[in-house]
Amino acid sequence: MGNEQVTTPSQQTEGLQSVRWASDHLEMLDQRLLPEEIVYLQLRTPEEVWEGIRHLKVRGAPAIGISAAFGVYLAIQHARGNTAELREAVEKACSYLATSRPTAVNLFWALDRMKGKAASLAQDAGLEAESFKQAMLQEAIQIQAEDEETCRLIGEHALTLFKDGMGVLTHCNAGGLATAKYGTALAPFYLAQEKGMPLKVFADETRPVLQGARLTAFELQQAGVDVTLICDNMAGMVMSKGWIQAVIVGTDRVAANGDVANKIGTYSVAVLAKAHGIPFYVACPMSTIDLNTPTGKEIPIEERHEDEITVGFGKRTAPVGVKVYNPAFDVTPHEYVTAIITEKGIVYPSYQENLPKLFS
Amino acid sequence: MGNEQVTTPSQQTEGLQSVRWASDHLEMLDQRLLPEEIVYLQLRTPEEVWEGIRHLKVRGAPAIGISAAFGVYLAIQHARGNTAELREAVEKACSYLATSRPTAVNLFWALDRMKGKAASLAQDAGLEAESFKQAMLQEAIQIQAEDEETCRLIGEHALTLFKDGMGVLTHCNAGGLATAKYGTALAPFYLAQEKGMPLKVFADETRPVLQGARLTAFELQQAGVDVTLICDNMAGMVMSKGWIQAVIVGTDRVAANGDVANKIGTYSVAVLAKAHGIPFYVACPMSTIDLNTPTGKEIPIEERHEDEITVGFGKRTAPVGVKVYNPAFDVTPHEYVTAIITEKGIVYPSYQENLPKLFS
Repeated sequence: MGNEQVTTPSQQTEGLQSVRWASDHLEMLDQRLLPEEIVYLQLRTPEEVWEGIRHLKVRGAPAIGISAAFGVYLAIQHARGNTAELREAVEKACSYLATSRPTAVNLFWALDRMKGKAASLAQDAGLEAESFKQAMLQEAIQIQAEDEETCRLIGEHALTLFKDGMGVLTHCNAGGLATAKYGTALAPFYLAQEKGMPLKVFADETRPVLQGARLTAFELQQAGVDVTLICDNMAGMVMSKGWIQAVIVGTDRVAANGDVANKIGTYSVAVLAKAHGIPFYVACPMSTIDLNTPTGKEIPIEERHEDEITVGFGKRTAPVGVKVYNPAFDVTPHEYVTAIITEKGIVYPSYQENLPKLFS
Repeated sequence: MGNEQVTTPSQQTEGLQSVRWASDHLEMLDQRLLPEEIVYLQLRTPEEVWEGIRHLKVRGAPAIGISAAFGVYLAIQHARGNTAELREAVEKACSYLATSRPTAVNLFWALDRMKGKAASLAQDAGLEAESFKQAMLQEAIQIQAEDEETCRLIGEHALTLFKDGMGVLTHCNAGGLATAKYGTALAPFYLAQEKGMPLKVFADETRPVLQGARLTAFELQQAGVDVTLICDNMAGMVMSKGWIQAVIVGTDRVAANGDVANKIGTYSVAVLAKAHGIPFYVACPMSTIDLNTPTGKEIPIEERHEDEITVGFGKRTAPVGVKVYNPAFDVTPHEYVTAIITEKGIVYPSYQENLPKLFS
């Protein structure tokens, strides 16, 4: 028996979840198989969680952090020993899990939080081992719940910007698959669906890796949201037909002046939105706003392998040896950004003045 | 023995040609296999030409017309009989070849021209059968030569708009593979290469069918042109980096007011060009300008099958049953078009006033 369990779309009743705790093990949606197969892996050891993170079965910084937190609990779930020994096992599990993806910031943040919780619990000399374990599980559950709450708040704020029947375009995947639930840019679509508010979502497929086609169109379809998939180069035409009243995207980093780094193609969408008089919104948790980065110019842009463009689907679609430019992200200057939506509320320009107020 | 002959890239010395006459048969580049394989089919009967057109081994209206003209000659090449009987064979071949792709206007135009030539030759009672055949072959060669000359002239005019070292972006494939040689929008790149004038070409891959990646990047690479392949959604970023000084594209139809129908994504490129202060040029033969179509609104936009987007690479990349919008073309309003380049010269706004002058 492997650790796989296949769930067909018709069996889904509450939408997809990147990871979910199931009484004594972690279930992780294998995102590499989407949208062709919906497979929840049943993970019962930190080693299995490490594998899942390392091999991109789970992606998105918040979802990775949550997975790691549960991985720490799995390391002590069946362990014997007193609280001091359990604390030692937690430290060891954290060091190990931290090696799964060395660049994911939320991973270290979640592991630090689990270590801190263990340290604080170990101070109580009279604490039973079983209570220690339960408190550690609760901490992981809490991390997941807080992320869900952050996304829900972002969605509530974003939804105040939309009206019944509006067409809204999004790019890439800033959805529930990258977080605990709801996502950031996709959160208002889930909430609108819960409230019975009709919205028409257009999802750019988002070349080269097609997160829009494989993940956004998929998770919104699963949730029953009215979503239409288009190629990236159709966004302008769809806007010119009057089908789009707002654009909303996620972001990887917001600079202090409001410049926004996000998946390649976001800048083109922002320019097209401005040309058509359509507001362009960015949704993100506070942790994405980096006041130490003055402007978008200081944000390094990762360039990725040409294979993503030339043989991205297992089939060669461009000549061998052709020169390729493949930036993974672009920067949208703040003058194209109508508003930034966080769990603490909606921020309008001047971002230079208004972003710091969020933190005070 | 089949009718195939494989030519590897290193054996190519004069670039690729969609079709070429080889003393007693037609060679047709099988464009369905590009860019992975360069295969010239050796066609010796009208039936083989019909197959080639029907099954998209050759594409692009001019190249289809040229293929059909040679197909007519192949029908009589080894025929016995007097000129009246040969003329009858021509008429029969034309009716047959016209069924290969019923919507390609250049196909009918080329077949009408071959029929007209046969009718005129048959008036000469003293004409030898062999001379009749040779004159028909010459007519097909002439159709090809005229198309090549038209493209060359378009290229010469377009090249006056470019300067040494400029970055030029193009979308889709308006190249030699769609015509006899040179193409329309790609013609200036071939001529610049011949003259040793350096240009840096950026080719949008052009989803969903990837003509930019499979054909444009390929034919320019074969010709030694400096070409860089990007995804459609990278055009804006590349412009913002200051790498692009001009955009040039082909067109399927120009309306009387200068509105331009072309491959989906062209409109987005035009809007991005305007936002970056970059001139946007359209290259086409006179036959593409349709003064009977008042504006772009009257140009019907073909919508194609969702499979092009959801399973376009032989692998499913979007969820089953997701709604898809897949227009094959879009219309770029004339206010985005800096100039239209034809074999008769460059036309600037007002197009409403200046396009008719080309025909007078």
